[in-house]
Amino acid sequence: MLGKRYEGQDCTIARSLDAIGERWTLLIVRDAFYGVQRFNDFQAHLDIPRAVLSERLSGLVEHGLLVRRPDPDHAGRHRYELTVDGRALWPALHALLVWGRRRSPTGDIRAFQHAPCGTTLDDLGACPSCGTTPEPEDVVVVALRPSQRDDPVTRALRTPHRLLEPLAT
Amino acid sequence: MLGKRYEGQDCTIARSLDAIGERWTLLIVRDAFYGVQRFNDFQAHLDIPRAVLSERLSGLVEHGLLVRRPDPDHAGRHRYELTVDGRALWPALHALLVWGRRRSPTGDIRAFQHAPCGTTLDDLGACPSCGTTPEPEDVVVVALRPSQRDDPVTRALRTPHRLLEPLAT
Repeated sequence: MLGKRYEGQDCTIARSLDAIGERWTLLIVRDAFYGVQRFNDFQAHLDIPRAVLSERLSGLVEHGLLVRRPDPDHAGRHRYELTVDGRALWPALHALLVWGRRRSPTGDIRAFQHAPCGTTLDDLGACPSCGTTPEPEDVVVVALRPSQRDDPVTRALRTPHRLLEPLAT
Repeated sequence: MLGKRYEGQDCTIARSLDAIGERWTLLIVRDAFYGVQRFNDFQAHLDIPRAVLSERLSGLVEHGLLVRRPDPDHAGRHRYELTVDGRALWPALHALLVWGRRRSPTGDIRAFQHAPCGTTLDDLGACPSCGTTPEPEDVVVVALRPSQRDDPVTRALRTPHRLLEPLAT
């Protein structure tokens, strides 16, 4: 009924949603920023059917947001990493996070800090101490309180972790 | 199969997507920023089945992003306007737009300018002339080139229009 793309919409927001508008896709991108790279880790953190995850990962690879490489530790498996275009989603992802926090201020379990100085980013993604807007590789995600979840990704994120660095699960 | 919400995800991005993650929802919000308020105008600009549009509008009202009021010009019809929470989506929507533009630079048909000075907003949504980050009510949307579309909303947006002001269709 409703197609995957928004062909009739002459608009760059629609072009963005062509690539990331499907259910779960943006949460896969979120996990990739956290340093999740292996299929099984995405699956453990997202609790979605493997067929859905597989389809979404392939879509992200086709749209050029993730690159798929052989996993050096597991023959026959792959690792997924954000491309330059994928990393460029950080401001949009951070803005969505800020908006969600605004609506449920007590629901927030993670904070994002500027790595060199440890200052929490403001709502525009800037560092109030340094006056810069850091790239995601200069941002550290910090757990504010225990999560209701208990999976390898959630456990690894209990200690501060620099975005985009592979997460040790 | 896949539920509408992301209950198992302990994350504010997932809370945001609970409200705006469904297909078409974010394009309805985009149109509300353009000043679209009437069901028939949303429908003419989005080309989606009326039942889908009706369901999405009701969802946005339930989540507190749109308010539905009787239309003073048409007995029995309604107008939809963004609430304070809905307007707070502007930074996320602008960030998605910037990302879409980055991926297809020639596909952009609209620019966003700071109303008082006419300067085009930068990629962070700030006005380079004034050094401020304007609220959406201080932003004007300007057509850069003709759209492939020809509907009342697209025609009305051919002239510069201040965001959130009702669009005369």
